Amino acid sequence: MVQDKTPLHFVTLLGSLRAHSLNGIVARTLPSLAPPGITITSLGSVGDLPHYNQDLEDQAMPPAVLAMAEAIRAADGVIIVTPEYNYSVPGVLKNAIDWLSRVTPQPFAKKPLAIQTVSPGAIGGARAQYHLRQSLIFLDAFVLNKPEAMIGQAITKFTETTLTDENTKAFLTRQITALAELAYSFK
Amino acid sequence: MVQDKTPLHFVTLLGSLRAHSLNGIVARTLPSLAPPGITITSLGSVGDLPHYNQDLEDQAMPPAVLAMAEAIRAADGVIIVTPEYNYSVPGVLKNAIDWLSRVTPQPFAKKPLAIQTVSPGAIGGARAQYHLRQSLIFLDAFVLNKPEAMIGQAITKFTETTLTDENTKAFLTRQITALAELAYSFK
Amino acid sequence: MVQDKTPLHFVTLLGSLRAHSLNGIVARTLPSLAPPGITITSLGSVGDLPHYNQDLEDQAMPPAVLAMAEAIRAADGVIIVTPEYNYSVPGVLKNAIDWLSRVTPQPFAKKPLAIQTVSPGAIGGARAQYHLRQSLIFLDAFVLNKPEAMIGQAITKFTETTLTDENTKAFLTRQITALAELAYSFK
Amino acid sequence: MVQDKTPLHFVTLLGSLRAHSLNGIVARTLPSLAPPGITITSLGSVGDLPHYNQDLEDQAMPPAVLAMAEAIRAADGVIIVTPEYNYSVPGVLKNAIDWLSRVTPQPFAKKPLAIQTVSPGAIGGARAQYHLRQSLIFLDAFVLNKPEAMIGQAITKFTETTLTDENTKAFLTRQITALAELAYSFK
Repeated sequence: MVQDKTPLHFVTLLGSLRAHSLNGIVARTLPSLAPPGITITSLGSVGDLPHYNQDLEDQAMPPAVLAMAEAIRAADGVIIVTPEYNYSVPGVLKNAIDWLSRVTPQPFAKKPLAIQTVSPGAIGGARAQYHLRQSLIFLDAFVLNKPEAMIGQAITKFTETTLTDENTKAFLTRQITALAELAYSFK
Repeated sequence: MVQDKTPLHFVTLLGSLRAHSLNGIVARTLPSLAPPGITITSLGSVGDLPHYNQDLEDQAMPPAVLAMAEAIRAADGVIIVTPEYNYSVPGVLKNAIDWLSRVTPQPFAKKPLAIQTVSPGAIGGARAQYHLRQSLIFLDAFVLNKPEAMIGQAITKFTETTLTDENTKAFLTRQITALAELAYSFK
Repeated sequence: MVQDKTPLHFVTLLGSLRAHSLNGIVARTLPSLAPPGITITSLGSVGDLPHYNQDLEDQAMPPAVLAMAEAIRAADGVIIVTPEYNYSVPGVLKNAIDWLSRVTPQPFAKKPLAIQTVSPGAIGGARAQYHLRQSLIFLDAFVLNKPEAMIGQAITKFTETTLTDENTKAFLTRQITALAELAYSFK
Repeated sequence: MVQDKTPLHFVTLLGSLRAHSLNGIVARTLPSLAPPGITITSLGSVGDLPHYNQDLEDQAMPPAVLAMAEAIRAADGVIIVTPEYNYSVPGVLKNAIDWLSRVTPQPFAKKPLAIQTVSPGAIGGARAQYHLRQSLIFLDAFVLNKPEAMIGQAITKFTETTLTDENTKAFLTRQITALAELAYSFK
């Protein structure tokens, strides 16, 4: 049904800087998993943003922050793809959110948003997801409730460079479709 | 009672990079608020650590991370002093924790630890504290339950450079004392 | 603007059983704070539901649960008004949610929902709100992000029987209006 | 090493009322999994406590609450065994905690405590555990950090009446031993 409607564009925000990150593989695979009518592109690396410091902000908002904020505002939705570090959101991802939250108008406001986490353990990044959701209340994003994409036991689902598990791919397509439906429900 | 026992040394980890941070004022004031027998020093700036990236770690653990880890291991306890950003832990602080968690032996393990947050609003940083506590479960720190130090309505308690509120100072001394008692209970 | 649209009906779910509960006062005051075009009624007492027990459910869903579920399904939105007990959701309220979650179709699914907490302390029930929101992800409710209604320092805002603080009343009217706008955005 | 020390007595608090609850099976199995020198008994059913209501408390603390509080105070530690309901703590368990928190002296204060959750899904009750831990901060319990006992995929580990998985049994014995070590560290 998505393909009969206005095309949508989603952007991905990746919470890992590692070259061979499994979450990075997922983020790069998403464009090929999107149903017709949905395009997905990357927001660029959170590693390009400096450590958040209000003194820096007071001088000038870094161009990389402004570019990322503009790309979010132009998109119909955001997909955050991230590992869980120490039972929470990676510092590098939270740092990007801390910067983005300072841009006016704040780019996450009223923005449909989905979360995906990949982790080696059974829990699949759930702890990071609920912390991230708490930040997104403040940012007034419309976070998709279901389906939640927590990809555990990652070792069985990936090669070094590729997401190989077909069930996981089909599940991610379902989540992208659900995000599209959430986006349409507000149009 | 603390002064009849072995002297203790605590270290502070500060979650803000802003020069005039209210949390920074608190962290710098703590040494003067410690009861006799307790010394408190700073762990240095979390801004000196790069963005966490496992590829970087695989090359070599950054010297600033190793130095911070060593100072934590040598201390009898840690006091984390931090603002709340976007209903959670600042990215820059979480990034430091993400690095420190990768050092072997992991420096927070079995370490007595207290949390202090300063914020302009009524809630006083509570949301950041509970997220931080969840990370500290994984790191196996012994986090002080009570008293919780959430300093809200900060504007009424500080000048631009100084913590002026005497009740807050006395409260922080009580928390430092409680951390000392927790540390002694494990010795 | 609300009054130019279809009338809406919201229902309140109260998390306290105490006769003189401050949260009960708020729940009973809400109908008078609603803007024109919005009616608000009570879902009845969570004290009328037994302790959740799947064995009981397997015999027959209690009529009080079915009645509450039906009233939620018939409503355009739900307002949960609750104290915070032990840094979380009161057991009696969570017990009602545990029952309601078992009714098919599940009554909270896709339901616009707002949360209000009253507490004597400064934090105003925030800790209960974020726990409640986590349950509501599973239940697929559309929980209003903003404004968050956390009424702290309650002693200054109530007499024994009445919510007297005009700012709080105006704030609650704004939250009801925001819930109406959320409800309309999905119609 | 535990058997060379003072014997310890732990009590279990069960969060489910279902007769064939998997968590109930675990709670009833724990005495047989305890290492020599540790005895474990049940605190009785949380279903015997009324819905928490301060008006009821003002009349008289229910005898079942007082008996449970006394048994906790007499014990060297508490093991909470509970399902996760709706991404959080079951209402019936939280209700028991709400009552127990009102007894003076509060029975959980300074009490070594471990948490075990059994669930059918992959996540094993993790979401309930972190919510429970937040309540236990307020109650000033000493909650064991590690190992965390989240028993997922329960269908593969139980018959209708028995915990059959030997790895899970050995793991629970390790957690009981870790709780004993925590208890000794404070003696």
